[in-house]
Amino acid sequence: MAHALFEYDGLCRNIHGHSYNLEVTLIGKSKKQPGHPKDGMVVDFGELKKIVNSKVVEKFDHALMINSLFPESQIELLKQTTKRIIIVDFQPTTENIVSDIARILQQHLPTGVSLFSIRLYETVTSFAEWFASDNQ
Amino acid sequence: MAHALFEYDGLCRNIHGHSYNLEVTLIGKSKKQPGHPKDGMVVDFGELKKIVNSKVVEKFDHALMINSLFPESQIELLKQTTKRIIIVDFQPTTENIVSDIARILQQHLPTGVSLFSIRLYETVTSFAEWFASDNQ
Amino acid sequence: MAHALFEYDGLCRNIHGHSYNLEVTLIGKSKKQPGHPKDGMVVDFGELKKIVNSKVVEKFDHALMINSLFPESQIELLKQTTKRIIIVDFQPTTENIVSDIARILQQHLPTGVSLFSIRLYETVTSFAEWFASDNQ
Repeated sequence: MAHALFEYDGLCRNIHGHSYNLEVTLIGKSKKQPGHPKDGMVVDFGELKKIVNSKVVEKFDHALMINSLFPESQIELLKQTTKRIIIVDFQPTTENIVSDIARILQQHLPTGVSLFSIRLYETVTSFAEWFASDNQ
Repeated sequence: MAHALFEYDGLCRNIHGHSYNLEVTLIGKSKKQPGHPKDGMVVDFGELKKIVNSKVVEKFDHALMINSLFPESQIELLKQTTKRIIIVDFQPTTENIVSDIARILQQHLPTGVSLFSIRLYETVTSFAEWFASDNQ
Repeated sequence: MAHALFEYDGLCRNIHGHSYNLEVTLIGKSKKQPGHPKDGMVVDFGELKKIVNSKVVEKFDHALMINSLFPESQIELLKQTTKRIIIVDFQPTTENIVSDIARILQQHLPTGVSLFSIRLYETVTSFAEWFASDNQ
C-alpha cells in the first residue's frame, strides 16, 4: 500500500509505499465438542484469514491511502493516476491504520471470539501494535 | 509432526504435516548472586532448551498425532504404517496442542520460574498462543 | 557484541560474540492534531531509531562487555586487545543486558511515551524480554 503523510516534516510527506505485514490475534475459548468440525479451535485459521483478507487486505492492497486534509485539487489529480485511492479522515500512520483495522475487524468477527491484539509492520523493523486491553 | 482433524469439514481431516515452530517464554527473577555460575539468569537458555527438546520436541517430531475418537480399526491400520503415533484425547488443533505443551512443561520447569506464554506456529502465518494469565 | 560470563559453568565463560537483535516497544497515545507534522503518531519511528541507535546500538556494537568481577589483570590484558570494552557491574547475560537497556532508554524517551517492552535476541532462538509492567 502507498501513503503520504500530510504536512509531515520529512520524506514521508511524499507518496511512497510499504510492504505492510499484518498479524491479527484473537482471544476466546477453544470449542470443546468432540465430533464437531471445529472441535478444539478458538477460530478456524481459514475463517480468520478469509475475514482479514476480504475486509482488510484486498481493500488496502495496492491502494493509495490519503488524508482527507489534502487539498481537493491534489486528490482529484491523484484520482486520475490510480483507481485504488482510499480517502481517510486520519493521518495514515501505522498507528492510525492499525486502529482502523481493529475497528473494521471488530465488525466482522465470529461470535465467541474477540480481538486480542493487532500488530502492523510498516517495514521489517517498524511496527505499531494495538491491544484490546488498552482500548476499552 | 503430522496430524488429522477428526470430522473436520475441510482438507485437514486428512493426515497432513506441518513444520511447527515453538516459542516458550518463562517468567522469573534474574539470579543476583555474583560469582554463581548462573548469576544474572532467569534460566539458563541451555537448560530450557534441554527441557523443551526432551519433553516436547523429541516426542512430537516426525510423529503422527491422532484424536482417540478415530475408529479403532483406522488407528490399528495407522500403527502398521508408522512407529511414531501419539493418540491424544483431544482434537490435535494448534490451540489444543499448545495447551498440552503447557501442561507438559509445567511439570518439568526448574524451581523459581514459571511459564509466561507459549506460541506455537502451525505454519509461518498461523499460530496459537497460550498465556499463563488466561489459564489460572 | 562480545561477552563472557564470569564463573559460568560452560562454554560461555569464554569470550564469544552474538548478533543481538533488539526490539523496543513504546506505549502512548497517538497525537491527534490534524496538520501537525507528527499527527497520528505515538512516536516518529525515525526519532525512536535515532535514540536507540545513539544510546544503545552504537555503544554496544562490536564492543566487549565484561563483568567488573573479572580479575583486574585480565581486564588490563583485554584492554590491550580491543578499544571497545564495556565494564559493567553485572553479569552480561541477555536478561541483565535487556534490563540495562531499559534503564538507559528510560532516560532518553520523548515526553508522552514510555517503554512498554524490550525484547533482546541473543541468537535467533533465544531471547529475554523486559516488560515495564513487571518492573514498576
